[in-house]
Amino acid sequence: MELASAIKARRSIRTFKKQDIPQETINELIEAALLAPSAGNVQSWAFVLVKEPDTKQALSKAALGQSPVAEASVVFVVCADEKRAQQSYGERGRTLYCIQDTAAATQNILLTACSLGLGTCWVGAFKEAEVRKIIKAPEEMRPVTMIPVGYPNEFPPARSRRPATEVVYHENF
Amino acid sequence: MELASAIKARRSIRTFKKQDIPQETINELIEAALLAPSAGNVQSWAFVLVKEPDTKQALSKAALGQSPVAEASVVFVVCADEKRAQQSYGERGRTLYCIQDTAAATQNILLTACSLGLGTCWVGAFKEAEVRKIIKAPEEMRPVTMIPVGYPNEFPPARSRRPATEVVYHENF
Repeated sequence: MELASAIKARRSIRTFKKQDIPQETINELIEAALLAPSAGNVQSWAFVLVKEPDTKQALSKAALGQSPVAEASVVFVVCADEKRAQQSYGERGRTLYCIQDTAAATQNILLTACSLGLGTCWVGAFKEAEVRKIIKAPEEMRPVTMIPVGYPNEFPPARSRRPATEVVYHENF
Repeated sequence: MELASAIKARRSIRTFKKQDIPQETINELIEAALLAPSAGNVQSWAFVLVKEPDTKQALSKAALGQSPVAEASVVFVVCADEKRAQQSYGERGRTLYCIQDTAAATQNILLTACSLGLGTCWVGAFKEAEVRKIIKAPEEMRPVTMIPVGYPNEFPPARSRRPATEVVYHENF
């Protein structure tokens, strides 16, 4: 799919078909994630792929009951490697760069999924401590995003956007 | 350009030709940015487009002398609207979601620029207080990324990536 079409066609998909995703397709999502830019190419990230129904259920509960996390074929739990970012860039690395690195990787996954006919949803609202326990995250790995991925069972219209006149400035504010 | 090709072809470009970018092309970058996902579709972002040579020079100085910022045809200063994010989501909105929103928008700009034959570089290292002064940012607008954009004057090879075996886990760590 053309890049511009993927950017326009991407939606938050919250219901999925009960249909497995072939491993080669999942590999394409991983490849796209790993090609994201990162501060100093440090790649302060890790990805936990969850397919076990009980684990997805637990993650959904940690995400305040959000059903797409339980329903998805696979859930990417994207973690910021705070230690790695801090070692290279100190506090700015830990609180900013590894959040940005993982967000860029997440966006690559979302766009690539869309281009492959898959649906995703960027889930940011969850209890981090619970998610850490479920995925047995070492201390330095902060879960920052969950991405449920599956074949979409809904095709919602585009949501409105604030117009450029409201958010784009020239030279200064 | 195909999405997958754009993801693979994107590089950090640090030297640019002295060539202006047509406004319609800049508009495509803006459109791509505004279509990024954001927490609750709150779109806690703002974009300041800088073309004035003196201002680019000042931004470059604030970015520890990074020359692409001075050399670029246009510099996108991407700001996280902390107030907007906090109003919707409290502290998690202010310290996480608006960073992620702006990073997703940044990634859309980088990929779209690549697909249009433009070069970019994700600049994260700069003195925020100085950048705030230069772009006259209101208190709630935190500059989080600068994106110099121009026609590339270098074609660097791909940088290596940590392999999936090192950063991808199954079910848990």
